[in-house]
Amino acid sequence: MQSVERLVLLGTGLISGSFALALKRARLVKQVVGVGRSIENLTRALELGVVDAYLTDAAAAVRGADLVLLGTPVGQMGRLMQQIAPHLSPNCVVTDGGSTKQDVCALFREHLPQQLASCVPGHPIAGSDLSGASAAQFGLYEGRRVVLTPLSENNVEAIERVRQLWQACGATVYEMSAEQHDGIFSAVSHAPHLLSFAYMNSVLDRYNAKQCLDFAASGFRDFTRIAGSHPDMWRDIALANRSAVLSDLKANIAQLNHLVQLIEQDQALALTEYIQRASQARIEWGQPKKE
Amino acid sequence: MQSVERLVLLGTGLISGSFALALKRARLVKQVVGVGRSIENLTRALELGVVDAYLTDAAAAVRGADLVLLGTPVGQMGRLMQQIAPHLSPNCVVTDGGSTKQDVCALFREHLPQQLASCVPGHPIAGSDLSGASAAQFGLYEGRRVVLTPLSENNVEAIERVRQLWQACGATVYEMSAEQHDGIFSAVSHAPHLLSFAYMNSVLDRYNAKQCLDFAASGFRDFTRIAGSHPDMWRDIALANRSAVLSDLKANIAQLNHLVQLIEQDQALALTEYIQRASQARIEWGQPKKE
Repeated sequence: MQSVERLVLLGTGLISGSFALALKRARLVKQVVGVGRSIENLTRALELGVVDAYLTDAAAAVRGADLVLLGTPVGQMGRLMQQIAPHLSPNCVVTDGGSTKQDVCALFREHLPQQLASCVPGHPIAGSDLSGASAAQFGLYEGRRVVLTPLSENNVEAIERVRQLWQACGATVYEMSAEQHDGIFSAVSHAPHLLSFAYMNSVLDRYNAKQCLDFAASGFRDFTRIAGSHPDMWRDIALANRSAVLSDLKANIAQLNHLVQLIEQDQALALTEYIQRASQARIEWGQPKKE
Repeated sequence: MQSVERLVLLGTGLISGSFALALKRARLVKQVVGVGRSIENLTRALELGVVDAYLTDAAAAVRGADLVLLGTPVGQMGRLMQQIAPHLSPNCVVTDGGSTKQDVCALFREHLPQQLASCVPGHPIAGSDLSGASAAQFGLYEGRRVVLTPLSENNVEAIERVRQLWQACGATVYEMSAEQHDGIFSAVSHAPHLLSFAYMNSVLDRYNAKQCLDFAASGFRDFTRIAGSHPDMWRDIALANRSAVLSDLKANIAQLNHLVQLIEQDQALALTEYIQRASQARIEWGQPKKE
Protein backbone atom coordinates (compact mmCIF):
# COMPACT_ATOMS: atom_id res chain seq x y z
CA MET A 1 0.00 0.00 0.00
CA GLN A 2 1.17 3.52 -0.76
CA SER A 3 2.29 5.55 2.24
CA VAL A 4 0.65 8.80 3.25
CA GLU A 5 3.14 11.61 2.57
CA ARG A 6 1.69 14.24 4.88
CA LEU A 7 -1.09 13.44 7.30
CA VAL A 8 -2.68 16.45 8.98
CA LEU A 9 -4.66 15.98 12.19
CA LEU A 10 -7.13 18.82 12.66
CA GLY A 11 -7.60 18.33 16.37
CA THR A 12 -4.89 16.23 17.98
CA GLY A 13 -6.49 13.96 20.52
CA LEU A 14 -7.30 10.36 21.36
CA ILE A 15 -9.02 9.49 18.07
CA SER A 16 -6.73 11.26 15.60
CA GLY A 17 -3.58 10.62 17.63
CA SER A 18 -4.23 6.90 17.84
CA PHE A 19 -4.85 6.81 14.06
CA ALA A 20 -1.49 8.53 13.50
CA LEU A 21 0.34 6.20 15.89
CA ALA A 22 -1.13 3.09 14.24
CA LEU A 23 -0.14 4.30 10.76
CA LYS A 24 3.35 5.18 12.00
CA ARG A 25 3.78 1.70 13.44
CA ALA A 26 2.62 0.23 10.11
CA ARG A 27 5.12 2.51 8.31
CA LEU A 28 2.27 3.94 6.27
CA VAL A 29 2.85 7.62 6.96
CA LYS A 30 5.91 9.80 6.36
CA GLN A 31 4.97 12.97 8.21
CA VAL A 32 2.24 13.70 10.75
CA VAL A 33 1.34 17.34 11.43
CA GLY A 34 -0.86 18.12 14.41
CA VAL A 35 -3.14 21.15 14.58
CA GLY A 36 -4.97 22.25 17.71
CA ARG A 37 -5.81 25.12 20.00
CA SER A 38 -3.91 23.98 23.09
CA ILE A 39 -0.15 24.41 22.78
CA GLU A 40 0.22 22.26 25.90
CA ASN A 41 -1.59 19.37 24.22
CA LEU A 42 0.35 19.82 20.95
CA THR A 43 3.66 19.88 22.81
CA ARG A 44 2.66 16.68 24.58
CA ALA A 45 1.75 15.11 21.20
CA LEU A 46 5.20 16.05 19.85
CA GLU A 47 6.98 14.69 22.94
CA LEU A 48 5.06 11.42 22.71
CA GLY A 49 5.84 11.01 19.01
CA VAL A 50 2.16 11.21 18.05
CA VAL A 51 3.02 14.05 15.63
CA ASP A 52 6.28 15.09 13.96
CA ALA A 53 5.38 18.77 13.94
CA TYR A 54 2.55 21.00 14.96
CA LEU A 55 0.91 24.22 13.82
CA THR A 56 -1.94 26.24 15.17
CA ASP A 57 -3.00 27.42 11.72
CA ALA A 58 -5.09 24.79 9.94
CA ALA A 59 -4.83 26.54 6.56
CA ALA A 60 -1.01 26.51 6.63
CA ALA A 61 -0.95 22.92 7.87
CA VAL A 62 -2.98 21.34 5.07
CA ARG A 63 -0.82 22.76 2.24
CA GLY A 64 0.77 19.78 0.55
CA ALA A 65 -1.22 17.28 2.61
CA ASP A 66 -2.51 14.13 0.90
CA LEU A 67 -4.64 13.09 3.91
CA VAL A 68 -6.53 15.24 6.41
CA LEU A 69 -8.32 13.79 9.42
CA LEU A 70 -10.81 16.02 11.21
CA GLY A 71 -10.52 14.86 14.79
CA THR A 72 -12.29 17.65 16.69
CA PRO A 73 -15.77 17.64 18.17
CA VAL A 74 -18.23 17.96 15.29
CA GLY A 75 -19.17 21.50 16.36
CA GLN A 76 -15.71 22.77 15.33
CA MET A 77 -15.53 21.01 11.97
CA GLY A 78 -17.45 23.56 9.85
CA ARG A 79 -15.11 26.39 10.77
CA LEU A 80 -12.06 24.23 10.10
CA MET A 81 -13.40 23.14 6.70
CA GLN A 82 -13.91 26.81 5.80
CA GLN A 83 -10.34 27.61 6.80
CA ILE A 84 -8.75 24.77 4.83
CA ALA A 85 -10.99 24.91 1.73
CA PRO A 86 -8.78 27.26 -0.34
CA HIS A 87 -5.57 25.41 0.57
CA LEU A 88 -6.35 21.74 -0.11
CA SER A 89 -4.60 19.93 -2.97
CA PRO A 90 -7.22 18.66 -5.42
CA ASN A 91 -6.39 15.03 -4.66
CA CYS A 92 -6.16 15.35 -0.90
CA VAL A 93 -8.43 12.87 0.84
CA VAL A 94 -10.35 14.35 3.75
CA THR A 95 -12.00 12.18 6.39
CA ASP A 96 -13.22 12.66 9.93
CA GLY A 97 -13.76 10.80 13.17
CA GLY A 98 -17.01 12.42 14.26
CA SER A 99 -19.63 10.47 16.18
CA THR A 100 -22.50 11.84 14.06
CA LYS A 101 -22.55 11.61 10.31
CA GLN A 102 -25.55 13.35 8.73
CA ASP A 103 -24.28 16.69 10.00
CA VAL A 104 -20.71 16.01 8.84
CA CYS A 105 -22.00 15.08 5.37
CA ALA A 106 -23.91 18.38 5.30
CA LEU A 107 -20.80 20.29 6.41
CA PHE A 108 -18.66 18.70 3.69
CA ARG A 109 -21.27 19.68 1.09
CA GLU A 110 -21.48 23.21 2.45
CA HIS A 111 -17.81 24.00 2.94
CA LEU A 112 -15.85 21.75 0.57
CA PRO A 113 -18.04 21.55 -2.57
CA GLN A 114 -15.00 21.31 -4.86
CA GLN A 115 -13.48 18.50 -2.82
CA LEU A 116 -16.50 16.21 -2.43
CA ALA A 117 -15.11 13.37 -4.55
CA SER A 118 -12.51 12.77 -1.83
CA CYS A 119 -14.32 13.73 1.40
CA VAL A 120 -15.15 10.43 3.09
CA PRO A 121 -17.09 10.70 6.38
CA GLY A 122 -16.10 8.11 8.96
CA HIS A 123 -16.66 7.07 12.56
CA PRO A 124 -14.15 4.92 14.40
CA ILE A 125 -16.00 3.17 17.25
CA ALA A 126 -13.47 3.56 20.00
CA GLY A 127 -14.86 6.19 22.27
CA SER A 128 -13.50 6.64 25.72
CA ASP A 129 -14.01 8.97 28.64
CA LEU A 130 -10.33 9.80 28.13
CA SER A 131 -9.28 12.55 25.76
CA GLY A 132 -6.24 14.49 24.60
CA ALA A 133 -3.07 13.49 22.81
CA SER A 134 -1.65 11.82 25.90
CA ALA A 135 -4.50 9.28 25.73
CA ALA A 136 -3.54 8.23 22.18
CA GLN A 137 -2.33 4.65 21.82
CA PHE A 138 -0.95 2.48 19.00
CA GLY A 139 -3.42 -0.35 19.43
CA LEU A 140 -6.66 1.59 20.02
CA TYR A 141 -8.26 0.38 16.78
CA GLU A 142 -7.21 -3.24 16.87
CA GLY A 143 -10.33 -5.34 16.68
CA ARG A 144 -12.53 -2.22 16.67
CA ARG A 145 -15.10 -1.19 14.08
CA VAL A 146 -15.02 1.83 11.81
CA VAL A 147 -18.16 2.93 9.98
CA LEU A 148 -17.81 4.89 6.74
CA THR A 149 -20.83 6.75 5.37
CA PRO A 150 -19.61 7.67 1.87
CA LEU A 151 -21.10 10.60 -0.01
CA SER A 152 -22.77 9.87 -3.35
CA GLU A 153 -20.14 12.25 -4.80
CA ASN A 154 -17.20 10.15 -3.51
CA ASN A 155 -14.92 8.48 -5.98
CA VAL A 156 -14.23 4.83 -5.31
CA GLU A 157 -10.50 5.38 -4.86
CA ALA A 158 -11.00 7.82 -1.99
CA ILE A 159 -13.33 5.42 -0.17
CA GLU A 160 -10.87 2.55 -0.74
CA ARG A 161 -7.97 4.67 0.51
CA VAL A 162 -9.71 5.50 3.78
CA ARG A 163 -10.93 1.93 4.18
CA GLN A 164 -7.47 0.46 3.72
CA LEU A 165 -5.83 2.88 6.13
CA TRP A 166 -8.32 2.02 8.86
CA GLN A 167 -7.83 -1.67 8.13
CA ALA A 168 -4.09 -1.11 8.49
CA CYS A 169 -4.86 0.21 12.00
CA GLY A 170 -6.45 -3.15 12.79
CA ALA A 171 -10.10 -2.10 12.40
CA THR A 172 -12.96 -3.77 10.55
CA VAL A 173 -14.62 -1.29 8.20
CA TYR A 174 -18.38 -1.11 7.53
CA GLU A 175 -20.33 1.08 5.13
CA MET A 176 -23.86 2.37 5.65
CA SER A 177 -25.89 5.52 5.06
CA ALA A 178 -25.33 8.48 7.37
CA GLU A 179 -28.96 8.32 8.45
CA GLN A 180 -28.73 4.64 9.34
CA HIS A 181 -25.51 5.35 11.24
CA ASP A 182 -27.03 8.16 13.26
CA GLY A 183 -30.05 6.07 14.26
CA ILE A 184 -27.93 3.15 15.43
CA PHE A 185 -25.45 5.28 17.36
CA SER A 186 -28.12 7.37 18.99
CA ALA A 187 -29.57 4.09 20.31
CA VAL A 188 -26.36 2.49 21.57
CA SER A 189 -24.16 5.45 22.41
CA HIS A 190 -25.68 8.94 22.35
CA ALA A 191 -28.84 8.13 24.30
CA PRO A 192 -27.02 6.15 27.03
CA HIS A 193 -24.58 9.02 27.51
CA LEU A 194 -27.45 11.49 27.94
CA LEU A 195 -29.29 9.07 30.25
CA SER A 196 -26.17 8.74 32.35
CA PHE A 197 -25.72 12.55 32.58
CA ALA A 198 -29.39 12.90 33.57
CA TYR A 199 -29.15 10.19 36.20
CA MET A 200 -25.98 11.73 37.67
CA ASN A 201 -27.69 15.12 37.91
CA SER A 202 -30.70 13.55 39.60
CA VAL A 203 -28.38 12.19 42.31
CA LEU A 204 -26.68 15.59 42.65
CA ASP A 205 -30.09 17.21 43.16
CA ARG A 206 -30.75 15.11 46.28
CA TYR A 207 -30.48 16.74 49.70
CA ASN A 208 -28.15 13.90 50.75
CA ALA A 209 -26.13 13.70 47.51
CA LYS A 210 -22.77 13.47 49.24
CA GLN A 211 -23.84 10.60 51.47
CA CYS A 212 -25.35 8.79 48.49
CA LEU A 213 -22.10 9.10 46.55
CA ASP A 214 -20.20 7.76 49.57
CA PHE A 215 -22.20 4.51 49.45
CA ALA A 216 -22.25 4.13 45.66
CA ALA A 217 -20.58 0.91 44.56
CA SER A 218 -19.76 -1.05 41.43
CA GLY A 219 -23.20 -0.84 39.80
CA PHE A 220 -23.13 2.93 40.08
CA ARG A 221 -19.53 3.05 38.90
CA ASP A 222 -20.24 1.26 35.63
CA PHE A 223 -23.63 2.86 35.01
CA THR A 224 -22.11 6.34 35.33
CA ARG A 225 -18.71 5.79 33.73
CA ILE A 226 -19.87 7.52 30.54
CA ALA A 227 -21.30 10.41 32.59
CA GLY A 228 -17.66 11.51 32.98
CA SER A 229 -17.39 12.18 29.25
CA HIS A 230 -16.35 15.44 27.61
CA PRO A 231 -19.10 18.12 27.86
CA ASP A 232 -18.37 19.98 24.59
CA MET A 233 -18.18 16.80 22.57
CA TRP A 234 -21.45 15.46 23.94
CA ARG A 235 -23.28 18.78 23.63
CA ASP A 236 -22.28 18.78 19.96
CA ILE A 237 -23.43 15.18 19.48
CA ALA A 238 -26.78 15.80 21.20
CA LEU A 239 -27.48 18.84 19.04
CA ALA A 240 -26.06 17.38 15.84
CA ASN A 241 -28.05 14.16 16.07
CA ARG A 242 -31.05 15.91 17.56
CA SER A 243 -33.85 14.06 15.84
CA ALA A 244 -32.63 10.54 16.60
CA VAL A 245 -31.56 11.50 20.11
CA LEU A 246 -34.89 13.14 20.96
CA SER A 247 -36.76 10.15 19.68
CA ASP A 248 -34.64 7.82 21.85
CA LEU A 249 -34.95 10.01 24.96
CA LYS A 250 -38.72 10.09 24.52
CA ALA A 251 -38.80 6.32 24.08
CA ASN A 252 -36.91 6.06 27.36
CA ILE A 253 -39.33 8.38 29.14
CA ALA A 254 -42.16 6.16 27.89
CA GLN A 255 -40.33 3.07 29.19
CA LEU A 256 -39.88 4.69 32.60
CA ASN A 257 -43.54 5.72 32.77
CA HIS A 258 -44.50 2.13 32.01
CA LEU A 259 -42.12 0.87 34.70
CA VAL A 260 -43.50 3.34 37.23
CA GLN A 261 -46.97 2.02 36.46
CA LEU A 262 -45.93 -1.61 36.96
CA ILE A 263 -44.44 -0.77 40.35
CA GLU A 264 -47.30 1.49 41.46
CA GLN A 265 -49.84 -1.18 40.55
CA ASP A 266 -47.77 -3.89 42.22
CA GLN A 267 -47.78 -5.96 39.02
CA ALA A 268 -45.19 -8.47 40.20
CA LEU A 269 -45.51 -10.86 37.28
CA ALA A 270 -45.37 -8.19 34.58
CA LEU A 271 -42.45 -6.57 36.39
CA THR A 272 -40.56 -9.87 36.46
CA GLU A 273 -41.15 -10.33 32.73
CA TYR A 274 -40.07 -6.76 32.07
CA ILE A 275 -36.77 -7.28 33.91
CA GLN A 276 -36.28 -10.77 32.45
CA ARG A 277 -36.49 -9.43 28.91
CA ALA A 278 -33.76 -6.87 29.59
CA SER A 279 -31.61 -9.23 31.63
CA GLN A 280 -31.73 -12.09 29.16
CA ALA A 281 -30.87 -9.82 26.21
CA ARG A 282 -27.97 -8.26 28.09
CA ILE A 283 -26.57 -11.66 29.07
CA GLU A 284 -26.88 -12.87 25.49
CA TRP A 285 -25.18 -9.73 24.22
CA GLY A 286 -22.03 -10.43 26.16
CA GLN A 287 -20.67 -11.97 29.29
CA PRO A 288 -20.89 -9.51 32.15
CA LYS A 289 -17.53 -8.70 33.64
CA LYS A 290 -16.64 -10.42 36.86
CA GLU A 291 -16.10 -8.06 39.78
CA MET B 1 -13.60 -13.58 69.32
CA GLN B 2 -15.91 -16.50 69.98
CA SER B 3 -16.48 -18.84 67.02
CA VAL B 4 -19.90 -19.47 65.55
CA GLU B 5 -20.90 -23.05 66.39
CA ARG B 6 -23.52 -23.59 63.71
CA LEU B 7 -24.07 -21.04 60.95
CA VAL B 8 -27.16 -21.63 58.82
CA LEU B 9 -27.42 -19.99 55.41
CA LEU B 10 -31.05 -19.66 54.38
CA GLY B 11 -30.37 -19.29 50.68
CA THR B 12 -26.90 -20.39 49.65
CA GLY B 13 -25.58 -17.97 47.07
CA LEU B 14 -22.99 -15.32 46.40
CA ILE B 15 -23.74 -13.15 49.44
CA SER B 16 -24.23 -15.84 52.08
CA GLY B 17 -21.64 -18.20 50.60
CA SER B 18 -18.95 -15.53 50.59
CA PHE B 19 -19.78 -14.70 54.22
CA ALA B 20 -19.38 -18.36 55.15
CA LEU B 21 -16.10 -18.70 53.24
CA ALA B 22 -14.63 -15.58 54.87
CA LEU B 23 -15.58 -16.81 58.36
CA LYS B 24 -14.15 -20.24 57.59
CA ARG B 25 -10.88 -18.69 56.50
CA ALA B 26 -10.83 -16.64 59.72
CA ARG B 27 -11.53 -19.87 61.69
CA LEU B 28 -14.59 -18.20 63.19
CA VAL B 29 -17.15 -20.86 62.31
CA LYS B 30 -17.31 -24.54 63.19
CA GLN B 31 -20.14 -25.77 60.99
CA VAL B 32 -21.90 -24.18 58.03
CA VAL B 33 -25.26 -25.60 56.94
CA GLY B 34 -26.70 -24.50 53.61
CA VAL B 35 -30.42 -24.40 52.88
CA GLY B 36 -31.89 -23.80 49.46
CA ARG B 37 -34.36 -24.94 46.84
CA SER B 38 -31.89 -26.05 44.16
CA ILE B 39 -30.18 -29.33 44.99
CA GLU B 40 -27.77 -28.66 42.15
CA ASN B 41 -26.68 -25.39 43.74
CA LEU B 42 -26.44 -26.95 47.22
CA THR B 43 -24.35 -29.84 45.88
CA ARG B 44 -22.05 -27.33 44.24
CA ALA B 45 -21.79 -25.41 47.54
CA LEU B 46 -20.80 -28.62 49.31
CA GLU B 47 -18.24 -29.55 46.64
CA LEU B 48 -16.70 -26.08 46.82
CA GLY B 49 -16.47 -26.18 50.62
CA VAL B 50 -18.84 -23.23 51.01
CA VAL B 51 -21.02 -25.39 53.30
CA ASP B 52 -20.28 -28.50 55.36
CA ALA B 53 -23.77 -29.91 54.98
CA TYR B 54 -27.04 -28.97 53.39
CA LEU B 55 -30.74 -29.41 54.02
CA THR B 56 -33.78 -28.35 52.11
CA ASP B 57 -35.84 -27.89 55.28
CA ALA B 58 -35.16 -24.53 56.92
CA ALA B 59 -36.93 -25.51 60.16
CA ALA B 60 -34.74 -28.58 60.65
CA ALA B 61 -31.61 -26.66 59.71
CA VAL B 62 -31.89 -23.89 62.30
CA ARG B 63 -32.23 -26.23 65.28
CA GLY B 64 -29.16 -25.65 67.42
CA ALA B 65 -27.93 -22.78 65.27
CA ASP B 66 -26.35 -19.78 66.99
CA LEU B 67 -26.28 -17.69 63.80
CA VAL B 68 -28.73 -17.60 60.89
CA LEU B 69 -28.10 -15.53 57.77
CA LEU B 70 -31.06 -14.95 55.46
CA GLY B 71 -29.41 -14.77 52.06
CA THR B 72 -32.40 -15.11 49.73
CA PRO B 73 -34.14 -12.39 47.74
CA VAL B 74 -36.20 -10.34 50.21
CA GLY B 75 -39.45 -11.70 48.75
CA GLN B 76 -38.69 -15.16 50.15
CA MET B 77 -37.67 -14.04 53.62
CA GLY B 78 -41.11 -13.77 55.23
CA ARG B 79 -41.98 -17.37 54.47
CA LEU B 80 -38.60 -18.55 55.75
CA MET B 81 -38.97 -16.59 58.99
CA GLN B 82 -42.38 -18.22 59.52
CA GLN B 83 -40.87 -21.66 59.02
CA ILE B 84 -37.96 -21.16 61.40
CA ALA B 85 -39.79 -19.17 64.11
CA PRO B 86 -40.76 -22.16 66.31
CA HIS B 87 -37.32 -23.77 66.03
CA LEU B 88 -34.87 -20.98 66.86
CA SER B 89 -32.85 -21.13 70.07
CA PRO B 90 -33.65 -18.06 72.19
CA ASN B 91 -30.12 -16.72 71.87
CA CYS B 92 -29.69 -17.39 68.16
CA VAL B 93 -28.68 -14.24 66.28
CA VAL B 94 -30.54 -13.77 63.01
CA THR B 95 -29.32 -11.38 60.33
CA ASP B 96 -29.86 -10.94 56.62
CA GLY B 97 -28.18 -9.69 53.48
CA GLY B 98 -31.17 -8.06 51.80
CA SER B 99 -30.78 -4.94 49.69
CA THR B 100 -33.80 -3.24 51.25
CA LYS B 101 -34.21 -2.76 54.96
CA GLN B 102 -37.54 -1.21 55.94
CA ASP B 103 -39.34 -4.28 54.61
CA VAL B 104 -36.97 -6.69 56.34
CA CYS B 105 -37.45 -4.82 59.64
CA ALA B 106 -41.22 -5.18 59.17
CA LEU B 107 -40.85 -8.90 58.40
CA PHE B 108 -38.76 -9.51 61.51
CA ARG B 109 -41.41 -7.75 63.61
CA GLU B 110 -44.21 -9.72 61.98
CA HIS B 111 -42.72 -13.21 61.99
CA LEU B 112 -40.13 -13.32 64.78
CA PRO B 113 -41.64 -11.18 67.56
CA GLN B 114 -40.09 -13.33 70.30
CA GLN B 115 -36.65 -13.10 68.73
CA LEU B 116 -36.45 -9.35 68.07
CA ALA B 117 -33.65 -8.68 70.57
CA SER B 118 -31.29 -10.65 68.33
CA CYS B 119 -32.63 -10.01 64.80
CA VAL B 120 -30.15 -7.53 63.26
CA PRO B 121 -30.99 -6.39 59.71
CA GLY B 122 -27.93 -5.89 57.49
CA HIS B 123 -26.88 -5.12 53.94
CA PRO B 124 -23.44 -6.07 52.66
CA ILE B 125 -22.65 -3.76 49.71
CA ALA B 126 -21.13 -6.26 47.35
CA GLY B 127 -23.72 -6.83 44.69
CA SER B 128 -22.80 -8.45 41.45
CA ASP B 129 -24.54 -9.60 38.32
CA LEU B 130 -23.22 -13.04 39.31
CA SER B 131 -25.21 -15.29 41.59
CA GLY B 132 -25.27 -18.79 43.04
CA ALA B 133 -22.94 -20.66 45.37
CA SER B 134 -20.33 -21.10 42.64
CA ALA B 135 -19.88 -17.31 42.57
CA ALA B 136 -19.03 -17.20 46.30
CA GLN B 137 -15.49 -16.09 47.12
CA PHE B 138 -13.35 -15.74 50.24
CA GLY B 139 -12.38 -12.13 49.67
CA LEU B 140 -15.69 -10.67 48.48
CA TYR B 141 -16.08 -8.42 51.52
CA GLU B 142 -12.52 -7.18 51.85
CA GLY B 143 -12.61 -3.41 51.74
CA ARG B 144 -16.39 -3.42 51.19
CA ARG B 145 -19.05 -1.74 53.29
CA VAL B 146 -21.79 -3.37 55.30
CA VAL B 147 -24.72 -1.32 56.57
CA LEU B 148 -26.59 -2.47 59.68
CA THR B 149 -30.00 -0.99 60.44
CA PRO B 150 -30.60 -2.23 63.99
CA LEU B 151 -34.09 -2.56 65.42
CA SER B 152 -34.93 -0.52 68.51
CA GLU B 153 -35.60 -3.93 70.15
CA ASN B 154 -32.05 -5.22 69.49
CA ASN B 155 -29.76 -5.90 72.37
CA VAL B 156 -26.31 -4.40 72.09
CA GLU B 157 -24.60 -7.79 72.17
CA ALA B 158 -26.45 -9.02 69.07
CA ILE B 159 -25.52 -5.88 67.10
CA GLU B 160 -21.90 -6.18 68.26
CA ARG B 161 -21.81 -9.87 67.29
CA VAL B 162 -22.98 -9.18 63.75
CA ARG B 163 -20.70 -6.14 63.42
CA GLN B 164 -17.63 -8.09 64.53
CA LEU B 165 -18.31 -11.01 62.20
CA TRP B 166 -18.61 -8.70 59.18
CA GLN B 167 -15.45 -6.91 60.27
CA ALA B 168 -13.73 -10.30 60.43
CA CYS B 169 -14.72 -10.71 56.74
CA GLY B 170 -12.77 -7.53 55.99
CA ALA B 171 -15.73 -5.16 55.76
CA THR B 172 -16.26 -1.72 57.28
CA VAL B 173 -19.56 -1.61 59.15
CA TYR B 174 -21.92 1.40 59.28
CA GLU B 175 -25.16 1.90 61.17
CA MET B 176 -28.11 3.99 60.03
CA SER B 177 -31.90 3.87 60.10
CA ALA B 178 -33.66 1.53 57.69
CA GLU B 179 -35.42 4.50 56.09
CA GLN B 180 -32.17 6.35 55.51
CA HIS B 181 -30.64 3.19 54.08
CA ASP B 182 -33.49 2.64 51.64
CA GLY B 183 -33.36 6.22 50.36
CA ILE B 184 -29.61 6.10 49.73
CA PHE B 185 -29.66 2.70 48.05
CA SER B 186 -32.61 3.54 45.89
CA ALA B 187 -30.58 6.51 44.62
CA VAL B 188 -27.28 4.75 43.96
CA SER B 189 -28.34 1.18 43.24
CA HIS B 190 -32.04 0.40 42.82
CA ALA B 191 -32.87 3.30 40.48
CA PRO B 192 -29.83 2.74 38.22
CA HIS B 193 -30.73 -0.93 37.88
CA LEU B 194 -34.28 -0.06 36.85
CA LEU B 195 -33.02 2.65 34.48
CA SER B 196 -30.68 0.15 32.89
CA PHE B 197 -33.49 -2.43 32.44
CA ALA B 198 -35.71 0.26 30.90
CA TYR B 199 -32.98 1.44 28.54
CA MET B 200 -32.22 -2.13 27.45
CA ASN B 201 -35.90 -2.72 26.71
CA SER B 202 -36.08 0.50 24.71
CA VAL B 203 -33.27 -0.80 22.48
CA LEU B 204 -35.03 -4.17 22.13
CA ASP B 205 -38.19 -2.36 21.01
CA ARG B 206 -36.39 -0.86 18.00
CA TYR B 207 -37.07 -2.27 14.55
CA ASN B 208 -33.29 -2.61 14.04
CA ALA B 209 -32.49 -3.88 17.56
CA LYS B 210 -30.15 -6.62 16.35
CA GLN B 211 -28.08 -4.27 14.22
CA CYS B 212 -27.90 -1.76 17.09
CA LEU B 213 -26.61 -4.44 19.46
CA ASP B 214 -24.00 -5.43 16.86
CA PHE B 215 -22.51 -1.93 16.93
CA ALA B 216 -22.79 -1.38 20.67
CA ALA B 217 -19.39 -0.80 22.26
CA SER B 218 -17.78 -0.10 25.62
CA GLY B 219 -20.13 2.70 26.70
CA PHE B 220 -23.12 0.44 26.15
CA ARG B 221 -21.35 -2.46 27.83
CA ASP B 222 -20.77 -0.60 31.08
CA PHE B 223 -24.08 1.28 31.09
CA THR B 224 -26.00 -1.98 30.73
CA ARG B 225 -23.87 -4.31 32.85
CA ILE B 226 -26.40 -4.10 35.68
CA ALA B 227 -29.26 -4.79 33.24
CA GLY B 228 -28.04 -8.41 33.28
CA SER B 229 -28.97 -8.73 36.97
CA HIS B 230 -31.28 -11.32 38.49
CA PRO B 231 -34.98 -10.66 37.65
CA ASP B 232 -36.55 -12.08 40.84
CA MET B 233 -34.16 -10.25 43.09
CA TRP B 234 -34.72 -6.93 41.36
CA ARG B 235 -38.48 -7.32 41.17
CA ASP B 236 -38.45 -7.85 44.93
CA ILE B 237 -36.25 -4.82 45.50
CA ALA B 238 -38.39 -2.59 43.27
CA LEU B 239 -41.57 -3.60 45.07
CA ALA B 240 -40.05 -3.67 48.55
CA ASN B 241 -38.53 -0.21 48.28
CA ARG B 242 -41.43 1.10 46.23
CA SER B 243 -41.77 4.56 47.65
CA ALA B 244 -38.10 5.56 47.34
CA VAL B 245 -37.76 3.86 43.96
CA LEU B 246 -40.84 5.55 42.51
CA SER B 247 -39.67 8.91 43.73
CA ASP B 248 -36.27 8.37 42.08
CA LEU B 249 -37.75 7.11 38.81
CA LYS B 250 -40.02 10.15 38.67
CA ALA B 251 -37.07 12.44 39.38
CA ASN B 252 -35.31 10.80 36.44
CA ILE B 253 -38.30 11.29 34.16
CA ALA B 254 -38.27 14.97 35.15
CA GLN B 255 -34.54 15.17 34.36
CA LEU B 256 -35.11 13.60 30.95
CA ASN B 257 -37.98 15.96 30.17
CA HIS B 258 -35.72 18.89 31.04
CA LEU B 259 -32.96 17.49 28.83
CA VAL B 260 -35.38 16.99 25.94
CA GLN B 261 -36.37 20.61 26.29
CA LEU B 262 -32.76 21.85 26.24
CA ILE B 263 -32.10 19.89 23.04
CA GLU B 264 -35.39 20.82 21.37
CA GLN B 265 -34.78 24.47 22.09
CA ASP B 266 -31.15 24.26 20.94
CA GLN B 267 -29.96 25.69 24.26
CA ALA B 268 -26.28 24.95 23.67
CA LEU B 269 -24.94 26.82 26.68
CA ALA B 270 -27.41 25.38 29.17
CA LEU B 271 -26.83 21.92 27.70
CA THR B 272 -23.07 22.28 28.15
CA GLU B 273 -23.58 23.32 31.76
CA TYR B 274 -25.96 20.42 32.31
CA ILE B 275 -23.40 17.91 31.02
CA GLN B 276 -20.50 19.64 32.80
CA ARG B 277 -22.24 19.30 36.14
CA ALA B 278 -22.66 15.55 35.69
CA SER B 279 -19.24 15.01 34.17
CA GLN B 280 -17.34 16.94 36.80
CA ALA B 281 -19.13 15.17 39.67
CA ARG B 282 -18.48 11.76 38.12
CA ILE B 283 -14.79 12.51 37.61
CA GLU B 284 -14.51 13.74 41.19
CA TRP B 285 -16.28 10.63 42.47
CA GLY B 286 -13.65 8.33 41.08
CA GLN B 287 -11.18 7.90 38.32
CA PRO B 288 -12.90 6.40 35.29
CA LYS B 289 -11.45 3.08 34.27
CA LYS B 290 -9.07 3.08 31.35
CA GLU B 291 -10.28 1.05 28.38
